[in-house]
Amino acid sequence: MADNYCVIMAGGSGQRFWPASRKALPKQLLSIEPDLTLVQATLQRVPKEIGPERTIIITNASQVAALKAQVDLPDANIIAEPLGRDTAPCIGLAAKIIQKRSPDAVMAVMAADHVIRPTAVFAEELCCAMDFAARSQGIVTLGIKPTEAATGYGYIHLGEVAEGAICQVQAFKEKPQKPQAEQFLADGGYLWNSGIFIWPVARILDEIATHLPKLSLSLEDLDEDIDTDRFDSRLKEVFPTLEKVSIDHGVLEHADNRFCLKTTFVWDDVGSLAALARHNEQDENGNTKLGDVVALDTSSCIADNRSDGILALLGVEDLIVVRTGDAVLVAKRGQEEQVKNLVAKLEQDGRGEFL
Amino acid sequence: MADNYCVIMAGGSGQRFWPASRKALPKQLLSIEPDLTLVQATLQRVPKEIGPERTIIITNASQVAALKAQVDLPDANIIAEPLGRDTAPCIGLAAKIIQKRSPDAVMAVMAADHVIRPTAVFAEELCCAMDFAARSQGIVTLGIKPTEAATGYGYIHLGEVAEGAICQVQAFKEKPQKPQAEQFLADGGYLWNSGIFIWPVARILDEIATHLPKLSLSLEDLDEDIDTDRFDSRLKEVFPTLEKVSIDHGVLEHADNRFCLKTTFVWDDVGSLAALARHNEQDENGNTKLGDVVALDTSSCIADNRSDGILALLGVEDLIVVRTGDAVLVAKRGQEEQVKNLVAKLEQDGRGEFL
Repeated sequence: MADNYCVIMAGGSGQRFWPASRKALPKQLLSIEPDLTLVQATLQRVPKEIGPERTIIITNASQVAALKAQVDLPDANIIAEPLGRDTAPCIGLAAKIIQKRSPDAVMAVMAADHVIRPTAVFAEELCCAMDFAARSQGIVTLGIKPTEAATGYGYIHLGEVAEGAICQVQAFKEKPQKPQAEQFLADGGYLWNSGIFIWPVARILDEIATHLPKLSLSLEDLDEDIDTDRFDSRLKEVFPTLEKVSIDHGVLEHADNRFCLKTTFVWDDVGSLAALARHNEQDENGNTKLGDVVALDTSSCIADNRSDGILALLGVEDLIVVRTGDAVLVAKRGQEEQVKNLVAKLEQDGRGEFL
Repeated sequence: MADNYCVIMAGGSGQRFWPASRKALPKQLLSIEPDLTLVQATLQRVPKEIGPERTIIITNASQVAALKAQVDLPDANIIAEPLGRDTAPCIGLAAKIIQKRSPDAVMAVMAADHVIRPTAVFAEELCCAMDFAARSQGIVTLGIKPTEAATGYGYIHLGEVAEGAICQVQAFKEKPQKPQAEQFLADGGYLWNSGIFIWPVARILDEIATHLPKLSLSLEDLDEDIDTDRFDSRLKEVFPTLEKVSIDHGVLEHADNRFCLKTTFVWDDVGSLAALARHNEQDENGNTKLGDVVALDTSSCIADNRSDGILALLGVEDLIVVRTGDAVLVAKRGQEEQVKNLVAKLEQDGRGEFL
């Protein structure tokens, strides 16, 4: 493990958590569980053997300041994308940086906005996957045992057992429709794709060279600027020229020698405001109250008022209410996926001051 | 009309409009209709012949500053009660002040928190009542034709016609239970008591002397301090010693020579937040939106955001949402009467900073 790396992707715009999340303060910089923000909790899950010197966060330029206020990493380990180009360029860039610093490293890449418990189990299973990736030179993904026929996640079709809890991957399946999701759940041979990947940097860069040759050339072009003063300005030149493509579509679906580790930790991708109820306590009426909230004759509400001032609920049920300094959202529970439509409307109406 | 007076009682605490209303900013200092606040609209209804020199507002000490920012009256015409003692002391004091300035005056007394339309009809009918009070030396009240079997108002049982739209009063009836209210409505001989009274100052002071002799003595005691530098400090001495009693119970129920003018204006006592819907326009989904409000898939809501910042509603119906600088209320429509319970709870919990 001596020279392995963790990469945390923290560039999401987090529209679904509006008004708490903003362009400059996305979901991963908010607290969903008590105490830590999502990115802080993600950092805490990085195995101790890796440590901050070999942990890299990739974010976008507009969020660097808010991120640096929350995390304690060397400046050279906080990479600011000038603009988002999906996961393949992001991961390719991280792999290139790591390769330059530690050519034989295995890297793990994960999102900054997941809730995972317990930390120790995650760290142990991640180390197991990194060890296997080093020995096999394989592409390893962490699979989650499905608890429902979710249509919001990709699935992994498992093949034969490779070793212990690690299986071959037969196929990555895109987010399914409900009937197919139910089939996957009943079959038992499918896991949710957590989006947490582990591989030797040399291996993933080879795969990028094979399947995304233009991206590979651009990364080669950046190579001599890595860890120099020129790096940020070179990123600003190169990034806008890159094709938007995900690592799943661009690389993983076409690769072989793929594996999946069946994990045992609890995993939640915190897709919407409903997550606040999953990760905080409820009062005797089923209300999730964060911050200064007074509720009378009120049940099954999520009320988030983690700012100065007061939020009062009277005779209501099944609502999500979020109060921030300059904005309030009142939504019906079950409509939380539509918060992004509201944000789109604000964008359309030229209300950028609230985005 | 040359030396007649109007008295506006503006001392209510307006708990039912929380969080827009506060101890220092009660309902009468808020706008319910577009543009004017309730007290400003009340002032605008005072007949021109009376004018600001003979218009007196009685408020309480904690509201004087906010009131003076809204109205343009001589300082001597804004009277600050050190504490509330119900309407008999308030009206007695006003009568005493007016008597000193203009012994033969007729005074009209009205609340600052009613919505009345049209202004011209009100002014005309008020002048008619003042003229009749001067000629008859009677106690005249303005009656409102009931539009429903309301249980929130007192009723006036009409007697024989005295002159034009003015009848004798057989009895003042307290707020009835529903069956009695329905009986009143069906009978046709009962009007709502608007709480707007007109009488010669000499007459009401005589009635107070007869029915509330202790109050009368206290007012006599204040007489020589009226319109002097000593007045405010003397009020602070005398007011706490006065008995809390309403003009209705303390005087009017026992008096004779009482009349009621059947008015034709539209009258609303703005008892709760529901009034915002009655006095503002609705959008195509039945939403009443004041200030910066964005609503998606939302119907039949009252959303009041007349402050900086934004209020967004998503997929909700039948809610009342009020956003102010430091507080938000989300209540079910139909529960607006319970807002006072919420305020009581805040008081109980020691949350004075929000009251």
